[in-house]
Amino acid sequence: MTVLTVGRWAAFSAAEREVMEAVFWERDVSRSALAAQMGYSKSKLSAAVSGLMTLGVLEERGVHASTGGRRAEGLGLSAELGVVAAVDLGATSLSVALLTPTLDVLSSLSEDTDVRQGPGPVMARVKALLRKLLTLQGLQEGAVLALGMGVPGPVEFHSGLLVNPPIMPGWEGFSIRDDLAGVVDAPVYVDNDVNIVALAEQWHARRTLQNFFVIKVGTGIGCGIVCNGAVYRGVDGAAGDVGHILVDPLGPRCHCGNVGCVEAMAAGPAIARAATLAAQAGESPLLAEWLHTQGRLDPPDVARAAREGDPVANAIIQKSGLLIGQMLAALVNFFNPSQIVLTGGVTRMGPLWLASIRQSVYQRSLALSTRHIEIRPSSLGEHGGLIGAGALAMLSSIRAESA
Amino acid sequence: MTVLTVGRWAAFSAAEREVMEAVFWERDVSRSALAAQMGYSKSKLSAAVSGLMTLGVLEERGVHASTGGRRAEGLGLSAELGVVAAVDLGATSLSVALLTPTLDVLSSLSEDTDVRQGPGPVMARVKALLRKLLTLQGLQEGAVLALGMGVPGPVEFHSGLLVNPPIMPGWEGFSIRDDLAGVVDAPVYVDNDVNIVALAEQWHARRTLQNFFVIKVGTGIGCGIVCNGAVYRGVDGAAGDVGHILVDPLGPRCHCGNVGCVEAMAAGPAIARAATLAAQAGESPLLAEWLHTQGRLDPPDVARAAREGDPVANAIIQKSGLLIGQMLAALVNFFNPSQIVLTGGVTRMGPLWLASIRQSVYQRSLALSTRHIEIRPSSLGEHGGLIGAGALAMLSSIRAESA
Repeated sequence: MTVLTVGRWAAFSAAEREVMEAVFWERDVSRSALAAQMGYSKSKLSAAVSGLMTLGVLEERGVHASTGGRRAEGLGLSAELGVVAAVDLGATSLSVALLTPTLDVLSSLSEDTDVRQGPGPVMARVKALLRKLLTLQGLQEGAVLALGMGVPGPVEFHSGLLVNPPIMPGWEGFSIRDDLAGVVDAPVYVDNDVNIVALAEQWHARRTLQNFFVIKVGTGIGCGIVCNGAVYRGVDGAAGDVGHILVDPLGPRCHCGNVGCVEAMAAGPAIARAATLAAQAGESPLLAEWLHTQGRLDPPDVARAAREGDPVANAIIQKSGLLIGQMLAALVNFFNPSQIVLTGGVTRMGPLWLASIRQSVYQRSLALSTRHIEIRPSSLGEHGGLIGAGALAMLSSIRAESA
Repeated sequence: MTVLTVGRWAAFSAAEREVMEAVFWERDVSRSALAAQMGYSKSKLSAAVSGLMTLGVLEERGVHASTGGRRAEGLGLSAELGVVAAVDLGATSLSVALLTPTLDVLSSLSEDTDVRQGPGPVMARVKALLRKLLTLQGLQEGAVLALGMGVPGPVEFHSGLLVNPPIMPGWEGFSIRDDLAGVVDAPVYVDNDVNIVALAEQWHARRTLQNFFVIKVGTGIGCGIVCNGAVYRGVDGAAGDVGHILVDPLGPRCHCGNVGCVEAMAAGPAIARAATLAAQAGESPLLAEWLHTQGRLDPPDVARAAREGDPVANAIIQKSGLLIGQMLAALVNFFNPSQIVLTGGVTRMGPLWLASIRQSVYQRSLALSTRHIEIRPSSLGEHGGLIGAGALAMLSSIRAESA
């Protein structure tokens, strides 16, 4: 196995890196398609490919259908390179996986966690799951090529430090990178969970998505932005922090101190609160009954009541969608994206929520900006976060970003 | 004179283009600084520089102070290349200039116009002024190296066509590029006036501004976005069309059909209307007097009244600033820019307007996003639009964008 350590990633030439990145996005690509896509001459491409095959970075894949008489051999990143470690940390869940360099999941483990326990206990579980997976695969820790991790809070990307993470008390200034450096001899990259989903969506679409954003609606509201093909983090790494955009000057006070923030009016807790108030006021017998039996109401209860035809639940869902759509309309006018991808727990509210978002965006955005726009739930399955973390690890390593 | 025609721009190698672009941004730069900045070896840089000097593209400039014992010769784009033609078309004004390849203004002409006359009469004036300037400089039309033009409406950048320009009736689908192709044998690039100002600001800062936006507030409100160092136009070229972002769900109806658009509540016409209503209602004796003598009130009247201490005028200016700031706060949370640059006629409302914008942005944006942000009026002088049009012409030609 040709494992690349932190130092060895830095040894590639610019042309070799470009070829690696192009092959990474394409998974399995013929030399002629690669040369055409990169604008390389056949000889320049051959030189880079030969070097990378000698180093064990690239390998021949199956035979491609060819337009000419000769068969076209496909190229892919070699499985011999090692494994990619991916960590997807949520507020209440932890998943760890080992992936091939082309992001096929070799094995994964998930468990409940509470990120508020702080970095000590949580990172101990990350390391334990990682070691368990390596053992299951019969691998040493040195087999890890690169590690990527998504976290539910803002990250200063170049340092990998958590910055003022509201739902992660005790993590402020904690370096996940340093903490994992002793475990794997490989570059470690950390980013927030929404940027990770944006990267996974881009990977899923083989880089055809160039200008889009992902909105995560759960306990809070966050946004991952891709601009000209790259994740855009802003000047201070704070881009996409859209939860406190004003949607109603007469709205309720938010925990941030301002009034009328979209997060305070349309995210999970606002939905649960509206349902509880409606139940207490006797507006919905169904919600009142569940509140009585369960002791509390959560967004899935509202979704369930809506499915059973409860008009109050439908109105709550519709209001959330309309307010999120109003916020998105402003961002569509500014950014003119090709797609808006929705993710997070509230996405499971159902079709009425999505329809309300769309209605609001179409009504409040300019015709030119909405001519081709697609607003859709994320198409990633349960492993979306892990695939995104793996893509972060591979891309950042190939580009030799500081780790 | 070594004039580059449309075809000849395409003949440069990728390395030559990179050197040309770096020299363009720097104006006058030593070989060692250039090699360091571009990550080129001295030999690779020397080869590209020698080729470009032989072709007459680069020339030696003055002697630079050097840290070592040897003197460092500066390099710049050669004035022998030809002249850059720049056209700055506003709703009511037209300026045309000839610039050196390093964007020094050789001569310029301005006159009043009315863009609503349509392309025929307006473009005839563009051509007449261009010919007059060439004659004044003793040059043939063939001396023009590249032409850039800013227009007060949305442009589909790759085709150069105007798309549904609200204040330019009769221009829909008109090709300025084709119209000027018969006049100059050089690439022609067209963009909207706010993108042009963004480019001029970036040029002014020698490309140190990488992520920022320009807001133009006049009759309408528009935005020019620079993302990762490049003007960002969005998927349909509609990015930055922020005038119809909702700022008050209970606000007045806008000409677009929606209610509460920032343009309808805070741009020039809204300021004039608020002043007129206040004068008619007897709330401001000063404004009432001017309305009586002048027959109408315009934004400069409101600014003048504010300078004379009129409280109603001050309240009108403050409300405009607060609403624009509220809209900008949403964009700051989303985009986390290093700067917001204000331009357009309403910018001349004075310090209270700017202070109100700042207050609103600081109150409604996240602390991390506003830690380093600068909100300021454009620092470009009267030739800002022309410099931006010249920068568009040079950069697009160097990058061989389709023209």
